[in-house]
This record gives sequence, structure tokens and C-alpha cells, in this order.
Amino acid sequence: MATIKDVAKEAGVSVATVSRVMNNSSHASASTKQLVKNAMKKLGYRPNANARALVSQSTNTIGVLIGDVSDPFYGSMVKAIDSIAIQHGKHLLIGNGYHNAEFEREVIELLINSRCESLVVHSKALSDEELIRFAQEKPSMVLINRYIAEIGERCIALDNYRGSYAAVEHLIKMGHRRIGYVCSNHEIEDTIQRKNGYLAALKAHGIKHQPAFIECSMPTEIGGEEAMTNLLSKNLDLTAVATYNDYMAAGTLSVLDENGYSVPDDISLIGFDDGIIAKYLSPKLTTMRYPIQMMAEKAVHLALKLACGASVNDEVRIYVPTMVRRMSVKPRQ
Amino acid sequence: MATIKDVAKEAGVSVATVSRVMNNSSHASASTKQLVKNAMKKLGYRPNANARALVSQSTNTIGVLIGDVSDPFYGSMVKAIDSIAIQHGKHLLIGNGYHNAEFEREVIELLINSRCESLVVHSKALSDEELIRFAQEKPSMVLINRYIAEIGERCIALDNYRGSYAAVEHLIKMGHRRIGYVCSNHEIEDTIQRKNGYLAALKAHGIKHQPAFIECSMPTEIGGEEAMTNLLSKNLDLTAVATYNDYMAAGTLSVLDENGYSVPDDISLIGFDDGIIAKYLSPKLTTMRYPIQMMAEKAVHLALKLACGASVNDEVRIYVPTMVRRMSVKPRQ
Repeated sequence: MATIKDVAKEAGVSVATVSRVMNNSSHASASTKQLVKNAMKKLGYRPNANARALVSQSTNTIGVLIGDVSDPFYGSMVKAIDSIAIQHGKHLLIGNGYHNAEFEREVIELLINSRCESLVVHSKALSDEELIRFAQEKPSMVLINRYIAEIGERCIALDNYRGSYAAVEHLIKMGHRRIGYVCSNHEIEDTIQRKNGYLAALKAHGIKHQPAFIECSMPTEIGGEEAMTNLLSKNLDLTAVATYNDYMAAGTLSVLDENGYSVPDDISLIGFDDGIIAKYLSPKLTTMRYPIQMMAEKAVHLALKLACGASVNDEVRIYVPTMVRRMSVKPRQ
Repeated sequence: MATIKDVAKEAGVSVATVSRVMNNSSHASASTKQLVKNAMKKLGYRPNANARALVSQSTNTIGVLIGDVSDPFYGSMVKAIDSIAIQHGKHLLIGNGYHNAEFEREVIELLINSRCESLVVHSKALSDEELIRFAQEKPSMVLINRYIAEIGERCIALDNYRGSYAAVEHLIKMGHRRIGYVCSNHEIEDTIQRKNGYLAALKAHGIKHQPAFIECSMPTEIGGEEAMTNLLSKNLDLTAVATYNDYMAAGTLSVLDENGYSVPDDISLIGFDDGIIAKYLSPKLTTMRYPIQMMAEKAVHLALKLACGASVNDEVRIYVPTMVRRMSVKPRQ
């Protein structure tokens, strides 16, 4: 492969001149630029991004840590980030953290070491302290779906509590009082906040909470099946079920179906996320919309601003889920 | 931020020695290594991945070009690649090509310029000639879901023709003879191969092809709705419909439903891909499984082998879709 020295020799200029042309410096004349470009073309020289990045201290790359790229939730998030990145001539470096502290740490370190200009980080497993340390080291790092007060101006978060509260209150206003909750067993803040939203809505409407009405399992379709099977076994006469997310709602729905319960005629069901599957379920799922695309766009704009050293104002960055009414909830008979 | 010079000064050694320690060279004694490591720790020095890559000519990174990360099909593909990458201590650099030649070219150039050790490329828009040129430049580049004879030993492809043929033959064996085809309007080889599979199956069973039985639209749910609406308008008395992919099948299903046709009682329906939505549809979709995970694993193993300069044998790399029988097809009444 041709080197920068070969190009300089071919063009009859110094290596420094070739370097200036590569970096679009104004200190090279148009005719010199053409000489160098012709030489590059002739030799098939490909400027080395590592070398260029060393000079400019920038890779034109936005680093993104997500949970798991095979989950369409993160697919939507990354696509939203990429659409803004393309507008700014940036590229993405993406790593999966799988909600595992070791993986999350390793990916963030890789992204920082790779001199990403800015970072958008979806971390659920690392402690607040560790994320604050990373944020100090990397002034253009932004957190998404996480709120840490000390670096609040760099957090784009969701009010999980309020979303879950609204979902359960909707069921209550439809006349339901025996409302089960299909909960995640992932020990992340989303789990606690959404469960607390369920409990608070019951309390606000004078409904006594019964621990038996909550079943926890994996935040997947299979987890939803397991949790709903357990709820049915306890013979609780539920007329409605709220769920941690749409996948658990899908599992809940199939268990209800297999056991002869019609949704929404016998039991109303509400999800959370408004992910890709919600509208494919039958009945189409009433759910709380997680505005992940809007949040991702906000996060990348913020990260790009921070990377330029621009000041960041104090506007609110806590988003709220909104209800998408479809066919899985109806008033209690 | 501390530089390598600061570390050398702190440790009382030369910059070259620090570099040797960073690269785990055997030419540094254990005590020197400890001195340097202590100095790095004290100064909070973070080795620059660009600088390391310049020395080692390797970034420990696998570059991946996909169509669109927000499509769960590519999510599954990337996850399969990542699981193998993790086992080998590699990281991924991912770019979206959106089936657009300019984007695909730009991403491949970024990945090569970034000195990715190896590449797994899902390109649909670039010409065979251009991909062959890239493959010559990058000996560890592997193509997935594409077959080019000249670089056949580096292609992991799917026999789209055979998959579509099997789908339509299944409908014929169930007694159907008036079979519509909901086709993609993306001008890529998958479209042509799948359509040809449909035509060949009809011909093999003595069924005369009628051009009116094919409608093309975008390979999405909305495209499926549009194509099926057009087929219904033509009053063709179809008893079965084969589709380009599961998304188009989902759109077909909702149009049939809205128009009072029951699937499979009135019209049988078969998809292609066995993507995430297939089992959430009602009825659950009978479809052709695209073994994308298996193919992605094969592709990354091949890319890693090529990156090491290992020889590659001539085993078959054309995969075949298999049928997943669910509830959307039944014998003609």
C-alpha cells in the first residue's frame, strides 16, 4: 500500500505539504493541491483515518452505548441518532452493554480511547459515581434514559413513574379496581419507578395494594407468560393488568388467550413503550409511548453542542410517556 | 490530559520504552513495566487508541455495514456478529447504508480508513465491480446476503429463489392454484430472485402465470397494504397470497381483515424472513425462515480467519430458507 512518503515523492513536494493538503489547510496553493491529489489517485493512496485523527484530535465519530442492538427499542434509538449524525457529517461507533456493568465499562472506555468526539450513553448497570467520573473525563458525554442530579444538564431521561401512574389511573378511570401488575425482575431504576407509579396510582384512588397482585419476571415475552400464569394461578379475579413493557404484555396476552380469557372483554391490558410489536398484537395494544426517537435526537444535539464547547442551557430534559389508545382496554362490565 | 511524554518523564524512562510497555512488548523488563504502569495510573494517562493502532496497524475492530439498524432483521444480524466478536475480544464499528449506493460507499470507505481489521458488508446498492474492487483492497472483507462469483469464497448468501419456490409450492400442495404475489419494488437481487421463485413454482406445477396476480410496493407493512388493496380491487378470486417478506404479509393481513376476508379460512398467507413480528400476528404467520443469525456467525468467523491470513476452504456458503408452519395457511376448501 502506498504511504504518504510515496505520494510526496510522486508529487515532488514534501511530506508536510501532502499532510497540509490532506487536512484542507489554507496554506497550500490550488496547483499544489491538484499535484498532490493526482499523485494520491495515481498511487491509490488512502489517507489513514488514524493518522488524520492523531493530527486533528478528532475522529468525526459519535460513540453510542446501547443495551442490545437486537432489541428494536435500541434500533429506533440508534436510527434517530444516526439521522442527526448524517446531517452533521458524523459517523457512529456503536457498542452493546447488555445491562452488564463490565461490558458497559469496556464499551465506554473503547469509545473514549477511540477519541470519539462525543458520546451518547445508555447505561443501566454502572453506578452514578462511575458515570460521573466518565462524564468528568469526557465533557461531551450525554446520558440517555438515566438521570443523575450531579450531571443533570447532560441527562435525557424519561419519567417512568409518571408514565406508569398514568397507565394505571386510566384503568381505574375505566372502572377497574382489581388490577394486577406484571413487573420486570431486572434490578434497574426503570423497574422501581414503574412499579412505584402503579402503587401510587392505586393509593391515590383509595385502592388497597395487595402484594399478591404483583408478579415479577424477565422483561420479555416469556417473562410475561410466566408472570401472568402465576397471577392466574392465584385466582385473584383480576379485571385488568398493567405491564412493565410491551413484550411482557404480549406474553400476558397469549397466556390469557390460552386460558380462555378474552382481552379486553374479560380482562383489560395495558403495555409500556409502544414498541414495534404493540400494533401487531391482537387486539392492538393500548400502551404508553416511550418517545425514544425524540429523546435520542435531543441527546445527540446536546452531545454535538458540548463537543464544540458550547454552553448548555437549563431547559427540562425529563420526557413524559403519552398514552396510545388502541383496543386492549375497555370499561369494566 | 497527560501525554506519553509526561508518562515517560514521570517514570524516568524514554518514550520508546513507554510505547513498548503499552504494546506489551517482550523487550521491557517486569520492573520497567511496573514503573510505567504506576506513572500512567498516577497521571490518569489513557493510551490513545489511534496512536496504538498506528503502531500495531490494527484496531481490534470489526467493521459492519448494514441496511438500517432500526430494522430488527439487521438487529439480529449485528447481535450474532457481536456475540462472536466478544468471544475474540473484538469491537464493532457499525454503519447504515440504507440501500443507497452513496451511503454504502461512504460507510465502507470509513470502515477501511478506520483500519478495521475485517469487514462484514451487507451491500445491496453497489455494483459487483465496485464491491470486487473493495474486496481486493481489503482481503478480510466478507459479503453477507450477496453472491458475486469472482469473490464467491468470501460471500455468505441466501438462496432466495429456492425459499420463495418452496413457499409457493407449499401453497400449491395445499390445493391452491389462484395464488397472488405481493412483491417488493426495491430493485435489488432479492426482489428478482424471490419473484422468480414464485414464477418457477407455478410453472413447475402447470399453473399459467397471470401478470395481474403480482403487485409491487415498498417492502414494508404499508407497502403490503397497498399491494393487497390493488389485488383485491382486481377481483381475482385469489385463495392464497405469497409475500416478499413478513412486513408485507402483515400489511396484507390487515387489508384482508378490514375487507372481511378471514386468514386462513378464506385466503391463505405465507411470509418470508421469520422476523420478530411473524409470531405476533394473528393468526401467527407461516413463513420462510431466513437463517440470518447462522449466516452472520459464519460471516464473522470467515472475516476473522481472513484477517489472520488463514486459508479459506471451498465449502458451500449459500444458505437455504426453511419453512416455519404456523396458522396462516390451510388447504383450499
